[in-house]
Amino acid sequence: MSTYKLTYFDMRGRAECSRLLFTYAGVGFEDVRLTGDQWGALKPSTPWGQVPILEVDGEVLAQSNTIARFLGRKFQLCGESDWEAAKCDEYVDATNDLFEQWAKFVFFEQDPVKKAALRETFVTTLAPKCLEVLEAIKQKNGGDFLVGKVLTWADINIADKLQILEDTVKADILRDYPGLAKFKAVVFAVPKLKEYIEKTAYSYKAMMPEAERHIDYSE
Amino acid sequence: MSTYKLTYFDMRGRAECSRLLFTYAGVGFEDVRLTGDQWGALKPSTPWGQVPILEVDGEVLAQSNTIARFLGRKFQLCGESDWEAAKCDEYVDATNDLFEQWAKFVFFEQDPVKKAALRETFVTTLAPKCLEVLEAIKQKNGGDFLVGKVLTWADINIADKLQILEDTVKADILRDYPGLAKFKAVVFAVPKLKEYIEKTAYSYKAMMPEAERHIDYSE
Repeated sequence: MSTYKLTYFDMRGRAECSRLLFTYAGVGFEDVRLTGDQWGALKPSTPWGQVPILEVDGEVLAQSNTIARFLGRKFQLCGESDWEAAKCDEYVDATNDLFEQWAKFVFFEQDPVKKAALRETFVTTLAPKCLEVLEAIKQKNGGDFLVGKVLTWADINIADKLQILEDTVKADILRDYPGLAKFKAVVFAVPKLKEYIEKTAYSYKAMMPEAERHIDYSE
Repeated sequence: MSTYKLTYFDMRGRAECSRLLFTYAGVGFEDVRLTGDQWGALKPSTPWGQVPILEVDGEVLAQSNTIARFLGRKFQLCGESDWEAAKCDEYVDATNDLFEQWAKFVFFEQDPVKKAALRETFVTTLAPKCLEVLEAIKQKNGGDFLVGKVLTWADINIADKLQILEDTVKADILRDYPGLAKFKAVVFAVPKLKEYIEKTAYSYKAMMPEAERHIDYSE
């Protein structure tokens, strides 16, 4: 039995998918949540100067999607064929592209006017384009999930992302995507995940600058 | 026997790793290279409005790393264990992070002063930081490759990236990284790959604005 230690900050961010995968699989792990000072001390010893990192019996693995995919494989959550494993990868990668754009206005852009403009483009153009594709994928696949007939790590990854969009961009962002809204509800209703989510109950809203928490993009 | 059709532009870019994987495996594929007009016509029918896409017996797979990883798995180029497959993913993802920065000054930034500044930071800080880590990985792993004892899709992916850095950033960018220089040479000396590279012989230099081809960052 391997021992696992997952190190990240005390937020959902790039580690939450892996925490949810451990939770779903019922596999114990050390959930290290760094303070800023601890991160400063740890950073030079990480492989690429980044977290999350996963230690498996002392060996280090870096890169958030790499870690989640590895756990997906360990816990039989990569679908039922090489093709389904690849579709998991595709959907995770494509939604990561959207989150690169998300990070620009949430974290990187400091100028408030440019920040608001990036956010506006995200809400009116980028997010709808991606969500439309995902909605069609969900409808076409039928059943409860995005890939094949069983829960995959891509479902958990993307349900978490949809939650982040609701929490940080627009509470009713899934209003026009009934398939995705139901999909997220089904994934988060899986008993072990439901219990974990209720217990942690932290929200991205807490990370947002006070002024932005109240921006209302609803019509 | 599956039929494969890989669609991208007539450049290396995000498809070359997959072309090299087909070549190495000796598996035939239709190598579709779009003109700008063809791309305009095709774009609306692609899953995410992007290329490359890979069609496998008519089913479409998108996202360049997803495609390359899928081919890596088909052609037994994902290492010899789940851990080695994950290390392949980590090294590809981490070097992708570097190429996000590369794309900023090669493609996205239009202001020539900002472009030059981004390039300078890339050459003096970002690339060395990444190459140092890769060099240490190569030295620690011993042998010819980055992961374990056999050639993987990560080796092909990263050898291609190193070539791109030499072609577009600085011809002697690997001067201080003897392990990586040797690694690239070994991968590209694999007979099937060598023959393909000599035959295609296209260079990223041809994509660069004329003025930039002659920038010399060597001391």
